[in-house]
Amino acid sequence: MTNFGVLGTGIVGQTIGSALLDLDHQVMLGARDAANEKASAWAAEAGERASHGTFRDAAGFGEIVINATSGDGTLPALEAAGTDQLAGKVVIDVSNPLDFSNGFPPSLSVPSTDSLAERIQRAHPSARVVKTLNTMTCGVMVEPARVPGEHQVFVCGDDVDAKVTVGELLGSLGWPADRVIDLGGLTGARATESYVLFWVYVRIALGSNDFNIQVHRA
Amino acid sequence: MTNFGVLGTGIVGQTIGSALLDLDHQVMLGARDAANEKASAWAAEAGERASHGTFRDAAGFGEIVINATSGDGTLPALEAAGTDQLAGKVVIDVSNPLDFSNGFPPSLSVPSTDSLAERIQRAHPSARVVKTLNTMTCGVMVEPARVPGEHQVFVCGDDVDAKVTVGELLGSLGWPADRVIDLGGLTGARATESYVLFWVYVRIALGSNDFNIQVHRA
Repeated sequence: MTNFGVLGTGIVGQTIGSALLDLDHQVMLGARDAANEKASAWAAEAGERASHGTFRDAAGFGEIVINATSGDGTLPALEAAGTDQLAGKVVIDVSNPLDFSNGFPPSLSVPSTDSLAERIQRAHPSARVVKTLNTMTCGVMVEPARVPGEHQVFVCGDDVDAKVTVGELLGSLGWPADRVIDLGGLTGARATESYVLFWVYVRIALGSNDFNIQVHRA
Repeated sequence: MTNFGVLGTGIVGQTIGSALLDLDHQVMLGARDAANEKASAWAAEAGERASHGTFRDAAGFGEIVINATSGDGTLPALEAAGTDQLAGKVVIDVSNPLDFSNGFPPSLSVPSTDSLAERIQRAHPSARVVKTLNTMTCGVMVEPARVPGEHQVFVCGDDVDAKVTVGELLGSLGWPADRVIDLGGLTGARATESYVLFWVYVRIALGSNDFNIQVHRA
């Protein structure tokens, strides 16, 4: 059993949090305000291993911290969580830097010479940031079998041991090692974050969130 | 038999040109200079249905024009081809706006609020621009069976009839209609061009160009 701090109380944070509870972990959902109604309702329904608090509370609670905030809320949320609370911890970033300021479909809010994950890492150098799971809808993140086929998940990060920890977590969620593609260091987040713009247009074309890709190779 | 003008004399242009000859079409390879050595050597080896000339020659020759230049050469090449030579024609854009000015891996040279394909369309409003095939290496473009699996190709463009023409061409290259995903209007090029940054990192991870993706859906 591991203590997870999940930052973000939207559908992504709640879905991941509930999946972690199903795996017998303990989860604190973190929000800007300790009294966040969505987090409070989620924790009340989710049972005794579920709790909620501020971003800082959740980061402190978690042995592993998951950033499930929206892209524009990510850096403020992690600042509120506190560098001291994140130090030495695996921080799994599943967020995407989508810019909806010009409507839908969105564009990317981070240029392709950088990534949101790298910005997190620079702001919190002692955190062990791993980017993963951001290339699919949250229902598929935690239940890959809902989409048929040998589709895959991507990971990247500068801390090799942190990626091993994340690989084990992914395995417990239904992603065996042969369906995890390691894109190397955290600069690989430029790839998976850019991919998300592609994801948005495929989502429009298919009319469904429930899809994912398989890389076939010769 | 259709006359194709292929702009660009690198591996992409030559590979597409040779594949079109194998399908009994006529192909003129276009370069900045009529005396381009690569184009001349290709045409000499490729036989009597192959020729070469300037960008303008090739655009004038083609009933269909294919832009296979590098991303940074695309807009100058099409300007040299001439708006008058492109008018009313299907222009298939397979290029990618990769910026290698800071080394490898590249970044994208067009922000995610725009795309190279849209820039081509704006510069040549009477051309019927269709973006496709840019999400894979050129060997897979013209021989999808070299990669196993039901992987797919993406198309987008504002001219529906032009997309039908391109769909027929894709079919002749080995892409049946059920493996062609239509991303809608030409703004979909923002998706497939952003995807290419992802492609680059997957290529590094796999150590091979010979791969492509399949979208699985629930």
